[in-house]
Amino acid sequence: MSHTVKDKSKLLARVRRIKGQVEAVERALIAELGCTDVLMLVASLRGATNGLTAELMEDHIRHHVVDPDSEHDADRAKGAADLIEVVRTYLK
Amino acid sequence: MSHTVKDKSKLLARVRRIKGQVEAVERALIAELGCTDVLMLVASLRGATNGLTAELMEDHIRHHVVDPDSEHDADRAKGAADLIEVVRTYLK
Amino acid sequence: MSHTVKDKSKLLARVRRIKGQVEAVERALIAELGCTDVLMLVASLRGATNGLTAELMEDHIRHHVVDPDSEHDADRAKGAADLIEVVRTYLK
Amino acid sequence: MSHTVKDKSKLLARVRRIKGQVEAVERALIAELGCTDVLMLVASLRGATNGLTAELMEDHIRHHVVDPDSEHDADRAKGAADLIEVVRTYLK
Repeated sequence: MSHTVKDKSKLLARVRRIKGQVEAVERALIAELGCTDVLMLVASLRGATNGLTAELMEDHIRHHVVDPDSEHDADRAKGAADLIEVVRTYLK
Repeated sequence: MSHTVKDKSKLLARVRRIKGQVEAVERALIAELGCTDVLMLVASLRGATNGLTAELMEDHIRHHVVDPDSEHDADRAKGAADLIEVVRTYLK
Repeated sequence: MSHTVKDKSKLLARVRRIKGQVEAVERALIAELGCTDVLMLVASLRGATNGLTAELMEDHIRHHVVDPDSEHDADRAKGAADLIEVVRTYLK
Repeated sequence: MSHTVKDKSKLLARVRRIKGQVEAVERALIAELGCTDVLMLVASLRGATNGLTAELMEDHIRHHVVDPDSEHDADRAKGAADLIEVVRTYLK
């Protein structure tokens, strides 16, 4: 990953919340909650997975392609900032 | 849920595989695997979550709306079978 | 479709708005608008397509499976109403 | 856009095919085709919209961020190539 330590702990916290959401789905099935309740829990899980994807893509762009906050070439900095905005829009 | 015992154990097996996939993402982050590898694991997780959603929706249609295999009204049976096919297409 | 006349005109209005959105993407490409602007127009198009899908599925459930507003069997009526809510959540 | 002429004509051809798919949905509604047939046409439209999104994102990365085929910095070239692969996986 070669991410910063700060990014790594944020990503791990996100993944652990997702694991908690999967365990909530598991418990809901065992407790025989209604289908709709289970489906709503799975919808939240899907949203959280999209959020993780957006954060991983943003980190990848910043650390392995172009970081808009430190890039000297202004066109590339803008191109990368725009790309991060698009990724967030598509995965929110 | 009031699903059959058979459905419930199939769904639980699916959720536990998803938990295994989330744990694989967690291990990949800890081991500092490349971003692309982590993103590919998250793409598999998303696919598995869509598969679980499709199965939950199909079970809901069969058990709480109309089961195409036991419905006497032929139009409703066909309507429910078509709906299940559409759900599978959209979530595959 | 065998939908009501009212449903059909609502659906047609929706599809024509989507056609207008595709034409906006076409004009943006011809006018050489920035990538990000084009991608944001395509994101709106995708949202509108999901909205059309949700409305078509809801109409299908009401007209060809179970209409929660006229169904005599209370369990089926609730099952269909829940399903419509889930479809809207997943496609919003 | 400031895309190459070649990219622009490829993108326009794609958008025009999408317009044709929206018109097919419109004709299907007017002809009162079955719901499932209309929903399958809309599923194809959604797939084509995702394909257009992936191509626009790839063009944006190549022209405004880093082009893996002409970048001198090997790490950035690999980062951009990996990102394009991830975008394709997520939007296929």
